[in-house]
Amino acid sequence: MSELFSPPPVQRLILAVNAGSSSLKIAVFEANSPPVRLASAKIERIGASDAKITLAIGGEASRSEAVVASSHDDALAAIMSSLRGKINDTSIAGVGHRLVHGGPNHSASEVITPKLLDDIRQLELYDPEHLPSELQVIESLKRRLSNIPHVACFDTAFHHDLPAVARRLPLPRRFDAFGVRRYGFHGLSYAYLMDHLARLDYEESRGRIVLAHLGNGASLAAVRDGKPIDTSMAFTPAAGIPMSTRSGDIDPGLIEYLLRSASITVQEFNRIIHLESGLLGVSETSGDMELLLEHESEDARAGEAVAIFCYHVRKYIGAYAAAMGGLDTLVFTGGIGERAAKVRLQICAELRFLGIELDPMANSDNSKLISNGAFPVKVRVITTDEEQMIAKDVINMIGERH
Amino acid sequence: MSELFSPPPVQRLILAVNAGSSSLKIAVFEANSPPVRLASAKIERIGASDAKITLAIGGEASRSEAVVASSHDDALAAIMSSLRGKINDTSIAGVGHRLVHGGPNHSASEVITPKLLDDIRQLELYDPEHLPSELQVIESLKRRLSNIPHVACFDTAFHHDLPAVARRLPLPRRFDAFGVRRYGFHGLSYAYLMDHLARLDYEESRGRIVLAHLGNGASLAAVRDGKPIDTSMAFTPAAGIPMSTRSGDIDPGLIEYLLRSASITVQEFNRIIHLESGLLGVSETSGDMELLLEHESEDARAGEAVAIFCYHVRKYIGAYAAAMGGLDTLVFTGGIGERAAKVRLQICAELRFLGIELDPMANSDNSKLISNGAFPVKVRVITTDEEQMIAKDVINMIGERH
Repeated sequence: MSELFSPPPVQRLILAVNAGSSSLKIAVFEANSPPVRLASAKIERIGASDAKITLAIGGEASRSEAVVASSHDDALAAIMSSLRGKINDTSIAGVGHRLVHGGPNHSASEVITPKLLDDIRQLELYDPEHLPSELQVIESLKRRLSNIPHVACFDTAFHHDLPAVARRLPLPRRFDAFGVRRYGFHGLSYAYLMDHLARLDYEESRGRIVLAHLGNGASLAAVRDGKPIDTSMAFTPAAGIPMSTRSGDIDPGLIEYLLRSASITVQEFNRIIHLESGLLGVSETSGDMELLLEHESEDARAGEAVAIFCYHVRKYIGAYAAAMGGLDTLVFTGGIGERAAKVRLQICAELRFLGIELDPMANSDNSKLISNGAFPVKVRVITTDEEQMIAKDVINMIGERH
Repeated sequence: MSELFSPPPVQRLILAVNAGSSSLKIAVFEANSPPVRLASAKIERIGASDAKITLAIGGEASRSEAVVASSHDDALAAIMSSLRGKINDTSIAGVGHRLVHGGPNHSASEVITPKLLDDIRQLELYDPEHLPSELQVIESLKRRLSNIPHVACFDTAFHHDLPAVARRLPLPRRFDAFGVRRYGFHGLSYAYLMDHLARLDYEESRGRIVLAHLGNGASLAAVRDGKPIDTSMAFTPAAGIPMSTRSGDIDPGLIEYLLRSASITVQEFNRIIHLESGLLGVSETSGDMELLLEHESEDARAGEAVAIFCYHVRKYIGAYAAAMGGLDTLVFTGGIGERAAKVRLQICAELRFLGIELDPMANSDNSKLISNGAFPVKVRVITTDEEQMIAKDVINMIGERH
């Protein structure tokens, strides 16, 4: 880690950039295989008066402080100046940008060209929540670091070649022309998990695997023989299981009824299913799983929210086992998947018929392998690292393998 | 059956009435345990110039002919006059009416009173497609047969007491006040299947059961220890798996995009997900499974529609096994479930891990038991009879047990 503070001999740093609608994260990696994280900076609540920046350099504990960031441009400037004391711009060999939506034509990471930026601008209606800030950050950072390659890493790319039965939504085929299909998201996380699993046990990584990325956004993916088979998010990240504030899939017949009976507009409906549903909608108090678990004993609504979340995840595990003809490995990741032992336990209850049985001690310790060895399905907890996956893709793209 | 033609000694006939948006069916049962079907009449394409009536009396082959029926009232008059030569009004002891939607307050069949009719009128927004014609038929028939009890049999009643994790949709709790919950449909069919299974093998009927009612409308239900656990339709019959022309569940985030990009209104969206999606939307030629199976070898779109249907049903079977901790019995019913051997085979492919293996000969013969006896899950084909279930409920309500 100390290399960070001495001038690197060659260009060997990679930036991994992750812009959310009100956040910006940049991680600095040494171009190695696998890439080594040297530093991370993030600014949250961009545009609010209480924006804060959090820095983690090398092995130091992370530090947070208030920052003025009224826009993503401000946030980028603040992060780059915080990092500038530590890294030298000339040592940066490439930049990878996470893009939530890649639309129908992007099946892998790509070097960003003016044409690619034009293509992505055409997708703004696919993801009006994320793409505008992502594009703004790409353009700003390309001006600041103009002589090195910038790479677009799509969260949809992992799922690009889903089988037709999973890819096609059961709507009129004429909507294909509007790009309507299952895209799926969390692809960088899933790619990381599959990479990690292949290093742990290659044979296992070719089996029948369910990956459960459970965070504020939450989805599952089925992977068989290394190939993505299905995933719970669809055209947008609002699909699939109930999440922190998103509803997941719903009865489409309900929409006209809700609009008429509750006198809401389509725009309000869209806000409701993105920001007011899921754990928050059911509990009426919070979309934060940690808080709900704290309060479930005294607030029945909190317990019901937790139970609904676990129930839907459990059903997806069963559904994906049916899609693949059985199950060999179940992987939990994401904030909830990595840390909420009670949630993992509740999800896996009743799944012994699939060959799943947790080791309660290993599970409550958040161990890497939490299944009872006497049962056939391996249940793993893997800390995901989307930024490392971005850095790896950049290294592959620019041929900077060390 | 010959009793039908001699004057019955007491009031012992029951009418079971099933009004669709453009159809009307009335079946005549002798009040027995189980009720014995004596005659059936149906009129299809009410309001169209090619409306036709089909009659099946006793053991005779059914006969169809053209009929003038511009309204449900016309259709009712035509059916009653066709039956009048065969049955005597004074021998009718009670009438049962199928109601697709019972709303939140109706958990069982109920004798129709003016208050109940008022309650049901309040539900018209829940099911604007079916309730108006159902109410019209109830009122007409009550005028014609005014001195006997009429009973409302709700297709939602079977699922009324679903566990909260299945009943509650992951939307803001304030929508409870608008009656938003999972209701589920095909309840009269499911009740019939459970009744039938209990007579076949009571022990088996207390196990972990998935019921698959696959017709133009299609849904699945999970039943454990005799109690409904979950079902795929929700607030409306448009939810769950893709059907003949309905989409089933979809990504709620897609709606605003579709409205904006394809310039459609919410009303058009509603029509699309009810009438232009599912098998028809994917195949672009037909929502009729029989036709699609005929053409799947020469039309890839037909094959894709069939494959998507089977894939979604298979995933639901896996999901419901996960909800119940395993599976003991799978029941197929409905037009597709009872007759499409290829569909059942494709659904059950890859389900050996659940203990399911079909006997190919028994399956292609549409036998009553189609599973391979060496595997633990019993797979059955049961011809459903919603009208018999209605008649049974009426007999129970009016105390006419013979």
